[in-house]
Order: sequence, then structure tokens, then C-alpha cells
Amino acid sequence: MSEFDMIQRYFYPLAQGHEAARGFQSDTAALQVPDGQQIVLTTDTLNEGVHFFKNTNPVIIAQKALRSNLSDIMAGGGDPLCYQLAVAFSSTPDSGWLSAFTAALKTDQDALDLFCSGGDTTSVQVGLSITITMIGLQPRGKGITRAGAQDGDAIIVTGALGEGYSAYQRGETIAPPRHHKDMAAVVRAYANAAVDISDGLLADIGHVAQASLMDAALDLGAIPISDCDPMQAIVGGDDYHIALSVPRDKTAQCLRALQKIGAHPAIIGHFVKGRGQISLLGDAGEELELPKKQGWQHF
Amino acid sequence: MSEFDMIQRYFYPLAQGHEAARGFQSDTAALQVPDGQQIVLTTDTLNEGVHFFKNTNPVIIAQKALRSNLSDIMAGGGDPLCYQLAVAFSSTPDSGWLSAFTAALKTDQDALDLFCSGGDTTSVQVGLSITITMIGLQPRGKGITRAGAQDGDAIIVTGALGEGYSAYQRGETIAPPRHHKDMAAVVRAYANAAVDISDGLLADIGHVAQASLMDAALDLGAIPISDCDPMQAIVGGDDYHIALSVPRDKTAQCLRALQKIGAHPAIIGHFVKGRGQISLLGDAGEELELPKKQGWQHF
Repeated sequence: MSEFDMIQRYFYPLAQGHEAARGFQSDTAALQVPDGQQIVLTTDTLNEGVHFFKNTNPVIIAQKALRSNLSDIMAGGGDPLCYQLAVAFSSTPDSGWLSAFTAALKTDQDALDLFCSGGDTTSVQVGLSITITMIGLQPRGKGITRAGAQDGDAIIVTGALGEGYSAYQRGETIAPPRHHKDMAAVVRAYANAAVDISDGLLADIGHVAQASLMDAALDLGAIPISDCDPMQAIVGGDDYHIALSVPRDKTAQCLRALQKIGAHPAIIGHFVKGRGQISLLGDAGEELELPKKQGWQHF
Repeated sequence: MSEFDMIQRYFYPLAQGHEAARGFQSDTAALQVPDGQQIVLTTDTLNEGVHFFKNTNPVIIAQKALRSNLSDIMAGGGDPLCYQLAVAFSSTPDSGWLSAFTAALKTDQDALDLFCSGGDTTSVQVGLSITITMIGLQPRGKGITRAGAQDGDAIIVTGALGEGYSAYQRGETIAPPRHHKDMAAVVRAYANAAVDISDGLLADIGHVAQASLMDAALDLGAIPISDCDPMQAIVGGDDYHIALSVPRDKTAQCLRALQKIGAHPAIIGHFVKGRGQISLLGDAGEELELPKKQGWQHF
């Protein structure tokens, strides 16, 4: 199987029907941006031996690669539009692997109404490396960042933690989230700040606290946990939910809006003016010791 | 040096002063797109042991990574705006390497008026891997592809071939191209089709011929060659020039426009209706045998 055959047979169907991808007949894609909209961009890389194992199911690799980008775009208040896919293989993958990998991308992108606009297929000495850059749209000036959390904001998560970590530990797949476009609209409508929690809840809430010059108080008992030890769930990552920082007078509306789109939100704590610290509170309001490893660091 | 220190100290200066990058304080960048403009996208990956050697000068790696994307954007008629940078290291790079790599990116981006909008820094088992997705702007509907070449079009290259190949063989660096924005405007104004020739002239002209259902006749003596064996220069790649397919009645204007922006263009052949074949003609018009290896294939 040549590089061009591989692209034509397995990757081109991810772009088919979308004029922007130009039939993969050019080195560039061309995207229309409606007047009054702006572009939201994010990039996530997954490497074999670091982000997944050598024999990880290609369906899981595809889902992790796409969803880690999707949750970033949604947390930024962007409606996902398309993605550039760079894949580097150390040997020509067999057709079974390619079929499973690309079918999983197709399932997610169809559920989420996005497409592959282009990319690059290369060879590499060892392992497998996947980099996706995803592009979303949002009304101009409506971008949400980590830096806007305000004193008194409630911290809302959009789903239960631990499912991702547990499923990946067992080598199982997870159904694609279904509420993406509406999710970005809810983020834009209610959040002062937002972050995806795919690196682990504590680490990612910590990023918002630091960027916003707030402290975060999290109520462990209020955090929705699924099928996992709570202390593992809050550091495990791989949950493609979002944490929103929402003004107190909008939390009720925000919770209803999230429920309406099929999410299972919960208020798990709040921000107060501070210096980026996190405290974790037990059932009696006592401060619990934080886990030592709060998220992944590459170096 | 932690991941966050590395990003703050070496990569953040590539974004500084550009609000779109949001101070690298969020997982997303937000780009303004002027009304009436569309986005042009491209992605190129470079892997150690495949696209460069383990001990290749980081300046050269940076230049190859950025310029391979730049030439794609320009060939598509796009004015380069910004790029997402994904870098995967197998060990923490030393500060000398990081300084040289990021300074080279900064030199090119300052000369070319673009910036780093974001990216991802990860670890990998072996080697070094760099993926850049570059974003450009162009007037809506003005995108140039490989597929538009017409019967009788002249084939124009925008500079001498062989410099890139020769310089990289010697481990030398090449000055950044200076005429990028005007280059995209010339491509949009005169070209029916265009392609960058970084994979090798013959391979890339072949792509245009196939996408446009044309045959290409190239006059070897007319191809500007610098410091290299001609047969090597036309397959070597690493020249970040562009090949344009230009209607006969516009070639004189196109050549003048290219000279005006500092390029050294030459007419090197023409397209005729056909099936994607290339012929290479000698001084007496005789057909020369094509080199066997006409461009890089990963698999």
C-alpha cells in the first residue's frame, strides 16, 4: 500500500462531501468563515508509549485524539468545524488497523457534524504519533478563556468523572459526546471562564485558578464520580467534560441549559480571590490532603 | 526545566504581542477573520531520522518546518497569518538547542509577518517530531489549487532549484524568503494552478498534471539551477519556491510582477491536455529519460 493509496482509501472518506478539503487534491484546505464569526484553534498530540500503549485499540486512539481537541474547542466556546490530521507511522499499518482507526474518527465526526479538512501522513522511526489541529467557529469576541473566573463564581462540571480513566484502563471505548454544538453555546452564554478537564480535574481547575488569580475550593462529595475511586477520578484525566466558572446569579439557568442538552452537570465548588491555590473539602467541610500527582507533566 | 517553564521561556516569545494567542493562557487561540476573507490551512510534519538527521542544526529544522508550510500556503494563494506548533521530544532538550530552534522560528516569522498562535509540547519515545499547521487568509473564492491548469499554460518557477538540497547536504542554512505576502497576491492574480516544489519539481509538477488532467513538457535547459547537478536539482526538493501554471497571455505580466517582488522567475515548460504525464526535453528538443526516484514516498 503506497502513501497515496492509503490516503485515498482510508483518509479521504473523512473529507468526502466537503468542498473545503478540495478532494485532498491540493496541499491546502480553504474554509469559509461567515461574516461576524471568528476562528478558534487548538492542537493536541498523542504519542505511542506516552499517551497510549503500543497495542491500544485504534478505536480508542482515534477517540482520544479527536475528543481531546473537541473538549478544548468547546471549552473555548467554539462550535467544532473541521480538523487537520497528522499521522506518523513507523511501519505501514495493516488495513484492519486503518479501517478501525478511520471508522472511529468517522463515527465521532458524523455525530459531531465536523470533517477532516486535510493533514499529513508521514513515516517515523519508532511508534505512532498523531497530531490534530481542530478549528471551530464562534461569534466575534465571544471567546472564553481560562483567565476570566470571578470572585464567587460557582464551578460546574458537565458530567461524571472517572469514566474515561476506568474505560481506558480496561481497554474499552466510550460513546461519543452528543451535545457539542449546544455545549459551546452554553459555555458562551454563561461562563466567565472554562477549561476541558482531560488532563485531570485538579490540574485543569488549577490552570483556571492561576490564570484568573483565584483560589478554588472543591467539595469532594459534590463531584459526580462514575465507576472509579474519587481521588483517582479527580486526577485521572481522559474525561472529555468541561469545567465552567459561572456567576452565582446564573448558575441555576446554566444547570438547566446543560441538562436540556443531555449533560449531567453538578456544582462542585467555587472560586474566591486568591493566588491559584486549590483546596479540597470533605463531607464535614474539613480540608483534605491533595493527591501528589495532579496531572500529567511531560518533562 | 518543566514543561511549563519551557513553554513560557522559549515558545511564548513566538506569540508575544499577538492577542489571538491569549498569552498561551488557554487551550485555544482566537483568530479574527476580516469580512470577505477565507481561511487557508495546511499541515506538515517533520520527523527525526526521516526528514532530518539526529544531529541536524536546530536552525535548519526550524526553517524546514516553517518554510514547508509557508510555501504550501503561498502556492494556495494565501497570505500567511499564524501557525500552531506541535513539538514532541524524547528527552528534555537543552537550552542551547531550544534557543537556536526558537530564534530561527522568530527570525522567519518576523521577516514574514506571522506569529505562533499555540500548539502542544509533548514527550515521545524516540527522536524528535514537529508538526506545524499554518493558517493563511485570502479573499473569498480566490483559492488556488493544483487542479486548475489549462491547455497551453506556461509553467513558471519562482526561483532557482538545487540551493535547498545543496545547502542541507552541507548542513548550511538558507536566508528566509522575503516576498511572501506579495507572492500570494501574484499567485492569486495570474495562476490557474500552483504548487510548492518542496517535494521535488518533477513530483510536484506531476501532481498538478494529474489533478488538472494535463501533460507537462519541461525544458531542462530553461530550469534555473543553482549550485547543483540539474538532474539532482529537479528531484531533490527542499527548495521553497512555487511553480505556477499561467495562461500564455498573462506570462509576461506575471514574470514582471514576480521580478518586482524580488523573485527570480523563469518559464520552464508548459501544460497540454493529457493524462498526468511529464516529459523532460533536452537542448535539441529531444526527450530525456526521467530520473527513477522523482520525489519522496513514505511507504
